[in-house]
Amino acid sequence: MIELPPLVDQHCHGVLRTELGLGTFEAYLTQSGAPAAPGTTFFDTQTGFAVRRWCPPLLGLEPHCPPASYLARRRELGVLEAGRRLLRSTGIGTYLVDTGLLGDLTEPAELAAAGGAAAHEIVRLELLAEQVADTSGTADGFVANLAEAVHGAAQSAVGFSSVAGCRHGLALAPEPPGPGEVRRCAGRWLSGRPVAGRLTDPVLLRHLLWTAVATGLPLQLHAGVGDPDMRIDRTDPMLLTDFVRATAGLGTDVVLLHGYPYHRQAACLADVFPHVYADLGPALARTGSRARTVLAEALELAPFGKLLFSTGGQGLPELHVVGARLFHEALGRLLAEWVAEGVWSRTDAARIAGLIAAGNAHRVYGLEGRSDGGRGR
Amino acid sequence: MIELPPLVDQHCHGVLRTELGLGTFEAYLTQSGAPAAPGTTFFDTQTGFAVRRWCPPLLGLEPHCPPASYLARRRELGVLEAGRRLLRSTGIGTYLVDTGLLGDLTEPAELAAAGGAAAHEIVRLELLAEQVADTSGTADGFVANLAEAVHGAAQSAVGFSSVAGCRHGLALAPEPPGPGEVRRCAGRWLSGRPVAGRLTDPVLLRHLLWTAVATGLPLQLHAGVGDPDMRIDRTDPMLLTDFVRATAGLGTDVVLLHGYPYHRQAACLADVFPHVYADLGPALARTGSRARTVLAEALELAPFGKLLFSTGGQGLPELHVVGARLFHEALGRLLAEWVAEGVWSRTDAARIAGLIAAGNAHRVYGLEGRSDGGRGR
Amino acid sequence: MIELPPLVDQHCHGVLRTELGLGTFEAYLTQSGAPAAPGTTFFDTQTGFAVRRWCPPLLGLEPHCPPASYLARRRELGVLEAGRRLLRSTGIGTYLVDTGLLGDLTEPAELAAAGGAAAHEIVRLELLAEQVADTSGTADGFVANLAEAVHGAAQSAVGFSSVAGCRHGLALAPEPPGPGEVRRCAGRWLSGRPVAGRLTDPVLLRHLLWTAVATGLPLQLHAGVGDPDMRIDRTDPMLLTDFVRATAGLGTDVVLLHGYPYHRQAACLADVFPHVYADLGPALARTGSRARTVLAEALELAPFGKLLFSTGGQGLPELHVVGARLFHEALGRLLAEWVAEGVWSRTDAARIAGLIAAGNAHRVYGLEGRSDGGRGR
Repeated sequence: MIELPPLVDQHCHGVLRTELGLGTFEAYLTQSGAPAAPGTTFFDTQTGFAVRRWCPPLLGLEPHCPPASYLARRRELGVLEAGRRLLRSTGIGTYLVDTGLLGDLTEPAELAAAGGAAAHEIVRLELLAEQVADTSGTADGFVANLAEAVHGAAQSAVGFSSVAGCRHGLALAPEPPGPGEVRRCAGRWLSGRPVAGRLTDPVLLRHLLWTAVATGLPLQLHAGVGDPDMRIDRTDPMLLTDFVRATAGLGTDVVLLHGYPYHRQAACLADVFPHVYADLGPALARTGSRARTVLAEALELAPFGKLLFSTGGQGLPELHVVGARLFHEALGRLLAEWVAEGVWSRTDAARIAGLIAAGNAHRVYGLEGRSDGGRGR
Repeated sequence: MIELPPLVDQHCHGVLRTELGLGTFEAYLTQSGAPAAPGTTFFDTQTGFAVRRWCPPLLGLEPHCPPASYLARRRELGVLEAGRRLLRSTGIGTYLVDTGLLGDLTEPAELAAAGGAAAHEIVRLELLAEQVADTSGTADGFVANLAEAVHGAAQSAVGFSSVAGCRHGLALAPEPPGPGEVRRCAGRWLSGRPVAGRLTDPVLLRHLLWTAVATGLPLQLHAGVGDPDMRIDRTDPMLLTDFVRATAGLGTDVVLLHGYPYHRQAACLADVFPHVYADLGPALARTGSRARTVLAEALELAPFGKLLFSTGGQGLPELHVVGARLFHEALGRLLAEWVAEGVWSRTDAARIAGLIAAGNAHRVYGLEGRSDGGRGR
Repeated sequence: MIELPPLVDQHCHGVLRTELGLGTFEAYLTQSGAPAAPGTTFFDTQTGFAVRRWCPPLLGLEPHCPPASYLARRRELGVLEAGRRLLRSTGIGTYLVDTGLLGDLTEPAELAAAGGAAAHEIVRLELLAEQVADTSGTADGFVANLAEAVHGAAQSAVGFSSVAGCRHGLALAPEPPGPGEVRRCAGRWLSGRPVAGRLTDPVLLRHLLWTAVATGLPLQLHAGVGDPDMRIDRTDPMLLTDFVRATAGLGTDVVLLHGYPYHRQAACLADVFPHVYADLGPALARTGSRARTVLAEALELAPFGKLLFSTGGQGLPELHVVGARLFHEALGRLLAEWVAEGVWSRTDAARIAGLIAAGNAHRVYGLEGRSDGGRGR
């Protein structure tokens, strides 16, 4: 197995603070949002099998033991202790935590403490805008408060994330909308908005993206079908080409999250545009025993300085475990094979592995110069 | 080699009743519909090589013998006896036979008798509509007769199939068309229709789909470029997203056939929507020595309870052979590899293999409760 | 390693005549057109690693030596001698040289002399049109001169190439534009055209394609994201379906270049349409240690008589080396694996390898009957 530095998980979420039943646990193994079809279970997926392979031994059980046994043992240890054991096995030294998911999830500092690691925050733009909308009476107020909120968040966060691709699709007009248009759409949205209503207006989504771009912090964009939300037919990152072109040279990096099954396209964009990076995480965690191939596909066209490890873990620390293990094993086997065939040198392989595991993220997010956030070791 | 239960071939067609020359045989090795380019032959394809690998030994010849020798031996045995030997080698216990292809093809009961298996019918909607049109004088008559024909077919068939993707493309408006619109389009189609004219009107195609959905039987939709017909640029199953969303929760399952080269997208839809299933067949039979990889790609995101084996065989029993052999071998090697690496348990691998080979189809098509159709063993 | 006949590199460009610094050399390892992102280098790509693997030993150095050492040795030998050593190692017997790139690149005869091979010209339509525009005063003059130039070029060239996909995208209206429309668009283009202005007008691009089709020479179309130019989101060869359908049966072959990451789609078109062929080159040179898989994906659906080897090499003879080596090794290993598994016979494997390496190109471009162009051995 290849030696890696402490990993930087450049995109994940917190874990649930509460004990879990079999049904809730199962629901986190998919991103479907719907129950499994009659006669089927989401444990019978690559993610389910990967969890059953890697996690039981970390809690003292046999690999591949039945889900019910695993959950019984998990409850016996308690959610806190189980979480500690799981997270501390991952080799992750730094979590970049997207705090934009609702639910009883740990904050970055808690995740850091549980995992004996550092953590920094990634702020999800759409949730921020919805929170601002909750407390803004008028369109003008909303626009002003939003600008303040984004710039305020930029003081402590290491980046922003957007689910515009899930809310509307990635085929967004590339240029920033004008102020009048933003105000009009904000007014319409606020007046018709139910309590906690979600932001789906394409003009406001674009406004959010451009407001974030102006901060200079890296901007993470969800792409690919990994997300449960609406527009799974409009998540090809190629749809972002014009937006990416429009943001070139401004000094803000764009990180394409996930991308699967369009991860080769994401890698192409990372090749062509200096400010575009591609993420590997959930595409590996969701494809399990196929992670090596999916990783290899991303490594075809993306320059090796443009790929970033992540787990995409959310809700279950098991997903952070699986994301990290699959990455480590897939990368190790792939590079070992290439070194054995003589196509890569051993020195290069080790160097590139370090870049993808941590070095690229340190550079893109400027992590070296930062305090450790909620380090808890 | 992994042990499998008797396979359910969930989508295939009958075989030709007549003796074949080299040219006709070759034409069935592709779905091009056009002759091979000058200086080339469709025997030089993955399907051609797979036929030459697997079939000659079943008729007492060496693998990879020249096509002319194989066809001579086939004629010597006679089409019936050759067909029996070939089909009985497949391990298929149940054929779901799409009877919507024209030509001198065996009926389900004949295929069952030849193969020593059970068979049930899948009714192709477009052919049914064209047959109804042949005997309907008016638009009103057509609409009424069509409703009766679909509901009549549902009494004995186990499912419907549609080639709307080939006729118009899969980017169909998702909602059912209104009755006035249907009547208008039916009138226009009937009045301009040549003898045996094909149905390509998108409104009528949608009407067919929704009429079938109302029966509650599984609906098979052709996707991907496997079909020779027109819209090979509009066969990405992702184009079905809105239709699939519109049919969610109605109690009717949707089975995406083939899908290649968009089989990963088909698997994504099967992951996200409980009522969507993905088929494996022709994508394997057409990719031959690459079938293992194509199967593995389908196994990335599709829950294992959502994948269905088929051969897609049509015209030549050789295609049923090749579809079954490639599936068996690809699945066997893939699972053996994953078990050897410890990523799947042996028990799980055997269980999942059984589901994909037969169990999922039994559940989706309700085969356990049915009489054996034309079982001929 | 499998034995191959002298290769026909059916699409490449000349090499630079001048000595190169590290920066210029690096720029040729990508097709990005932009500098590498801060902290990264294009040497850290599959192409970069492949060059470092294969080329240093050809100049007497260790594989994987540092880029600076390699370039020092290259300068020591001189650009001419280094080019000779590199090109003569490739096994390429015939270069089809697309002369449509600007820059101080060797002509076909020079490339042939350096490589001890034959060479023939492929004329790039857009450059030809731009050259004609430079010397045409009126729209009528331009149209007439263009027709003459294309038919003149067809006397000596073996084919045409088009970058319409890069200039406008491949979603072009399929039919030839009418003469009035062509004249109008030509007038508009000429009047607004800066010195050496590029042709991007879709009507004129279509006119070029159809003018070339009329000559009967093979027409190479760039597809996929390998090109640095604009429309990387509109390069899926599936977008060509209607154009391909419109040109079927006219007697002119269409060759889809590159295609990656849509190479499976290119192979599908080559399967369905007798006059469509798929190229393998830059998709291999750019994916390095993954070339075997990319080649295998092209071999899934494309009839084996429809695939053509190329390097896509441009500027650096190292790219011709890498393209040829990766092809030879990828094909060799793939076929060895299939022969070992018994799925292909050894005889078939050798025969098909010869077709893809050279035989198909000889047939498509009619090379047997031609003089050797600038053979320089």
